[in-house]
Amino acid sequence: MFTVNAYAATSATEPLTRTSVERREVGPRDVLIEIKYVGICHSDIHHVRGDWGPVHYPVAPGHEITGVVTRVGSEVGKYAAGDRVGVGCLVDSCRTCDSCRKGEEQYCLNGSTLTYGSVDRDGTRTQGGYTTHIVVDEHFVVRVPAGVALDEAAPLLCAGITTYSPLHRWGAGPGKKVAIVGLGGLGHMGVKFAHAMGAEVTVLSQSLKKMDDGLRLGADHYHATGDPTTFEELAGSFDLIVNTVSATLDVDAYLSLLAVGGTMVNVGAPAEPLSLNVFSLLARGRSYAGSSIGGIRETQEMLDFCGEHGIGAEVEVIPVEKTNEAYERVLASDVRYRFVIDIATLA
Amino acid sequence: MFTVNAYAATSATEPLTRTSVERREVGPRDVLIEIKYVGICHSDIHHVRGDWGPVHYPVAPGHEITGVVTRVGSEVGKYAAGDRVGVGCLVDSCRTCDSCRKGEEQYCLNGSTLTYGSVDRDGTRTQGGYTTHIVVDEHFVVRVPAGVALDEAAPLLCAGITTYSPLHRWGAGPGKKVAIVGLGGLGHMGVKFAHAMGAEVTVLSQSLKKMDDGLRLGADHYHATGDPTTFEELAGSFDLIVNTVSATLDVDAYLSLLAVGGTMVNVGAPAEPLSLNVFSLLARGRSYAGSSIGGIRETQEMLDFCGEHGIGAEVEVIPVEKTNEAYERVLASDVRYRFVIDIATLA
Repeated sequence: MFTVNAYAATSATEPLTRTSVERREVGPRDVLIEIKYVGICHSDIHHVRGDWGPVHYPVAPGHEITGVVTRVGSEVGKYAAGDRVGVGCLVDSCRTCDSCRKGEEQYCLNGSTLTYGSVDRDGTRTQGGYTTHIVVDEHFVVRVPAGVALDEAAPLLCAGITTYSPLHRWGAGPGKKVAIVGLGGLGHMGVKFAHAMGAEVTVLSQSLKKMDDGLRLGADHYHATGDPTTFEELAGSFDLIVNTVSATLDVDAYLSLLAVGGTMVNVGAPAEPLSLNVFSLLARGRSYAGSSIGGIRETQEMLDFCGEHGIGAEVEVIPVEKTNEAYERVLASDVRYRFVIDIATLA
Repeated sequence: MFTVNAYAATSATEPLTRTSVERREVGPRDVLIEIKYVGICHSDIHHVRGDWGPVHYPVAPGHEITGVVTRVGSEVGKYAAGDRVGVGCLVDSCRTCDSCRKGEEQYCLNGSTLTYGSVDRDGTRTQGGYTTHIVVDEHFVVRVPAGVALDEAAPLLCAGITTYSPLHRWGAGPGKKVAIVGLGGLGHMGVKFAHAMGAEVTVLSQSLKKMDDGLRLGADHYHATGDPTTFEELAGSFDLIVNTVSATLDVDAYLSLLAVGGTMVNVGAPAEPLSLNVFSLLARGRSYAGSSIGGIRETQEMLDFCGEHGIGAEVEVIPVEKTNEAYERVLASDVRYRFVIDIATLA
């Protein structure tokens, strides 16, 4: 075990503060990563504040991690010191179930190990990327392609894969009309990906406030969902809707925007059950689906796609001391489009 | 115009009775069919009793029609007198919209013309198959393969295609675990199809009352949904669930039976909106979909499949005078598995 600097929550109500956490020794298949950047995901805030259940404090959140390999275990074949790498939401899974064997570790039937707040296979609690170093099994490490800056790459590990996966699975591409609901950390990546895949992209946002950004990021159209004529005008339009908004919304209204055979995919879920009129699905052979991050192989594929298309997240890089302030701004949707902590300021 | 014998409803509350309805003259692309059999679909009862909105009486229901061609229009190329044919839920559509051009006339964007109770393109009201003859554009006529008896073929035109279409679209076949919810007119066809497609088939029925039938029809397993251990035992099992039950049910419980990436398809819808916890979809990348009958090309494909596999519906053939009694038995779920009216008794 060794100790590394961390920026962690010590309770649900106190601000995050400088402290340290333990890392395991580098095992035969482990990679030691010197963290350079970590994205601030809305989930980090939910987790440390206990919104999703009991929390073991102190906890350093962070699952949008990029950095440089500084040491590898004796059996590591994929990585060497100096490699630019990333770690996302998962650091382990059972490796044997159907999902794991298919490369869908996020759906591990025996429960995957999350990057922070999970019980690791050695019984310790996992600690995330608001730290200077992390030790991760090489299977759960991905390579950041040349040409994608490490700060802009960090949010790809969660916001990126979460939107790339459903766009890819449901065939976003030339001739397809894709809507992205919500232009935040996830939505702005969805727009970039869907555009790069060749789809005709529409942003559905509450207001037209971020319209210039949306068009600059690659959207062909931008509509305000606060304007009821939007739902009339766009009825039956989309082959695919990726809904990045976790708040409860009128699902039947959004489903009515789907073309025959179209699919709406939620990448987040409201806390409360919602009301669904099954006729919304039946009338035009529509589907309503859920999608959770992506597997490791697909995460690498997404990063390679970013390398080929010159895609990174739009980031506001902050020193670690600004983290608590950034949390408040995330809650106020006052970020375009992802805060990324410069871990050099934690060293 | 000419007059044909019919068995029709004259109000929402009176029993159906012998009467007559008008048929249009055989146009250049029309086929005149002498009806031999017509299935009794639950929708017939809903329609004539006004459950689904205002009805123009008299109305002869019936959209599971088989018979023999007796005359064809001058431009008809597909059919000739003597051909054994069927007509399902649709007798026309716009033919020009995206859905029609894809052969998905059931999702016609300009509204398809239903076999009864619709306004036809000539402004008259369509009348269904509880009649001795029907005149239908050849595009909406399908061929009944040799080897499928006309009485057993009739229910294929609605109950058959309604279950075949989602099984086909979502890839029921070898290596796939498929559940059919409800063993009624639709469900019993779903079991036959899924079995013939090579899937491992499970029936989920309220009780084990029809278990012997289910296994005989091709199911590999049979479970009672009234038994709460069923949901524990089968959690995460199925690649595809086809839900033939229109009643409101606990969707989250049924979704929990889906494997990673699995889909539940409703082919009917409860009248009231239902409650859905989006985590049921998100947790394992699941989908909830709707499917409405099938297109004409797919209906022909389904009939050809029935010819190849020797599949027909399980029917109880009745004389037309037993129709009202049969309605009561349908409402009491007292039929295994479809009533079919012998139209010779109406001549």
